[in-house]
Amino acid sequence: MNRPRLQVALDYSNLEDGIAAAVAVGCAVDIVEAGTIMLLQTGMQATRILRKLFPDKIIVADTKCADAGGTVAKNCKDNGATWMTCICSATLPTIKAALREIDEVQIELYGDWTMEQAVNWRQCGVKHLIYHQSRDALFSGTSWEPSDLKRIQKLIEMGFEISVTGGLNLETLKLFKGMNIGTFIVGRSITESESPGTRAQAFQNKISELWCDS
Amino acid sequence: MNRPRLQVALDYSNLEDGIAAAVAVGCAVDIVEAGTIMLLQTGMQATRILRKLFPDKIIVADTKCADAGGTVAKNCKDNGATWMTCICSATLPTIKAALREIDEVQIELYGDWTMEQAVNWRQCGVKHLIYHQSRDALFSGTSWEPSDLKRIQKLIEMGFEISVTGGLNLETLKLFKGMNIGTFIVGRSITESESPGTRAQAFQNKISELWCDS
Repeated sequence: MNRPRLQVALDYSNLEDGIAAAVAVGCAVDIVEAGTIMLLQTGMQATRILRKLFPDKIIVADTKCADAGGTVAKNCKDNGATWMTCICSATLPTIKAALREIDEVQIELYGDWTMEQAVNWRQCGVKHLIYHQSRDALFSGTSWEPSDLKRIQKLIEMGFEISVTGGLNLETLKLFKGMNIGTFIVGRSITESESPGTRAQAFQNKISELWCDS
Repeated sequence: MNRPRLQVALDYSNLEDGIAAAVAVGCAVDIVEAGTIMLLQTGMQATRILRKLFPDKIIVADTKCADAGGTVAKNCKDNGATWMTCICSATLPTIKAALREIDEVQIELYGDWTMEQAVNWRQCGVKHLIYHQSRDALFSGTSWEPSDLKRIQKLIEMGFEISVTGGLNLETLKLFKGMNIGTFIVGRSITESESPGTRAQAFQNKISELWCDS
């Protein structure tokens, strides 16, 4: 079983806070994500700066692309991103168009996606899925449940690399112990802590403890 | 029956082309849209400039928001947008959070949405839906079909105001004659024509011919 990677999501409404957070935690994480809120506010300036700051890291542009996959993917790549995201309701032609232009397209699972869609994604070359508890769902009281873990396990068995995100903290990581999770994506729980760099390292230590030391 | 409005979608990978197109056609259209491609590239600078250029028009930020509805909606409003879009796979809490922050949230219908979702959207206060033929679907040969028109009519009867978009030109408008369409959204068919302002006016004339003169 691979050790899950740690991805930090930078979701700020202004560039200065996002970049400051990137500088504070970037060294301690495996993947740096320009979050959707920040992309919509600042444009691809965000990914260009992240690429300059972290020339060798995976940079994700969380575009949640729903259409014009080829153009959005080309723009992401041209501006320094390694991976981009498509929303699960994007059509297959959109996803295929994106796959032709960038290293990796991750499908974000929101709302009522189906296992039938997952089969189609796999067939058209998608390797990565992002399993989500949305911020707004979390605010309304929904959290990780056994049904989530079961669906994630099924997707892993279909051959997908799964990123997990939404309301993760040092305590909730253990819910996923024993599962072949690809990446944990963490936002505010790292970036809004008193010492973001130390906090990111604590996540890495916890991942090692749960996935490597047993 | 209301006369449908005309919305121009500005979907450019750079700000200068987008703004030039806005200036060329803005006077002739009812609604100006900062398209997703442009927003992701330039950030909300695009909506701020459009608001300055067209202080009294409806400006749509085509965010296709899937999460963090409240934050994205507030950012859109703060940057001059009147309306924003949410993707159909956004959760209801996301849509509700957005509705609290901005005048209007339009749901973009992509992929496998259901009439059951439409009932839920109506109940939580959504008035506008955008019925789409995606660019990528159009490229792959799919166009407007009787089944599309039937679904649009059903949504109108549920009380939604419907915007229609994807591969519209002066010829295809007549497919919708007799239907209570809220808005036609047109992009390249206007902005990439030799004389975009004249072309936009030709769309307006055709809408008048089909909806007002009969």
